[in-house]
Amino acid sequence: MKKSNPNPIPARTIERVVLYNRILGDLEAKGVKMLFSHQLAELAHNTSTQVRRDLMEIGYSGSPRRGYNVSELIQAISAILGGSRERVIALVGVGNLGRAVLSYFTYKRHGLSIAAAFDTDERLINRVISGCRCYHLNQFEDMVREKQINLGIITVPADAAQSVADRMTSAGIRGILNFAPVPLRVPDGVFVDRIDIASALEKLAYFTGLN
Amino acid sequence: MKKSNPNPIPARTIERVVLYNRILGDLEAKGVKMLFSHQLAELAHNTSTQVRRDLMEIGYSGSPRRGYNVSELIQAISAILGGSRERVIALVGVGNLGRAVLSYFTYKRHGLSIAAAFDTDERLINRVISGCRCYHLNQFEDMVREKQINLGIITVPADAAQSVADRMTSAGIRGILNFAPVPLRVPDGVFVDRIDIASALEKLAYFTGLN
Repeated sequence: MKKSNPNPIPARTIERVVLYNRILGDLEAKGVKMLFSHQLAELAHNTSTQVRRDLMEIGYSGSPRRGYNVSELIQAISAILGGSRERVIALVGVGNLGRAVLSYFTYKRHGLSIAAAFDTDERLINRVISGCRCYHLNQFEDMVREKQINLGIITVPADAAQSVADRMTSAGIRGILNFAPVPLRVPDGVFVDRIDIASALEKLAYFTGLN
Repeated sequence: MKKSNPNPIPARTIERVVLYNRILGDLEAKGVKMLFSHQLAELAHNTSTQVRRDLMEIGYSGSPRRGYNVSELIQAISAILGGSRERVIALVGVGNLGRAVLSYFTYKRHGLSIAAAFDTDERLINRVISGCRCYHLNQFEDMVREKQINLGIITVPADAAQSVADRMTSAGIRGILNFAPVPLRVPDGVFVDRIDIASALEKLAYFTGLN
């Protein structure tokens, strides 16, 4: 979790702020204009003290008495999360999961988009799926350079995930979102996050009182 | 996040414990037998004090000087998470994402399995995909009763997610894992978790220093 910023915001704060951003986006879509910290706290399963502290940390000073302006707050958070450099994403593995992720990006937001998809299945090469062109994995390094790709999504089966991660990091990618149910070994300075469906279900079962 | 246990473990602790469980499972698969709290802490981006406190909270008392026995610790955590009642899962939406989730469960663990899948596409009805039979959504309520389903996974498009959630909660399901990129309104006492790919990528971009 290394950051090059002079005053990095702690990882836990960012986790919460990402959640606030999602909640605020949902509220804005429903037409909500103003919100109090205790309301945001309730939706985030949090306390209003924590919400106010987090928003102070990202430099947002609304008026706690009149509440926060939803769209202003989204802009403030997006300025922190969105930043200035463009995120250019490669997805490797155009099976069911890869296609699902590609189609997910038709609901895209915050300028995230997938620039290229890769697979080894010849039938997929040059096809355009949910607006994204598929290339052969042989072309991976060239395309990363050409399109200045800086993030990777791994949607290959478990046994292929490590070799894909190795190619991503060798090509200079420093952030990987891993959907394969295996841990990845990566060099220092590379950030990996994992979407873990089994862990999500374990939590769900626990909180549903099935334990 | 209501729990019926007499001494519920806080949600944040459970979040961390689920992560420890995943890390320990990965280590066990690699043949690691013993582990110190500071090692687990490092892998979980945490502190050893927090790790020891969390494990005390779930009632595990290893020997901090000799380290924790990995398989014992997994058993202790599974006893908390796994519990005694069986989790029986229904998945609704057998598109790309639904199929990916079904095939994910071929790597199943902790007794989680999907008992039935549902869709409205006639071509899918009665097909068996990754070991799971597909039924027409018309049969949903009957099957929930018959198979005693208590958890739901939503993998339908955004505009169908709320109506599926309504049917799930009406049928008595109290825990829902939502992959659709929309918030769900559910009655009190129903726990919803959301797999949010866009939020995961925002975090990734932030920690990769692209902001």
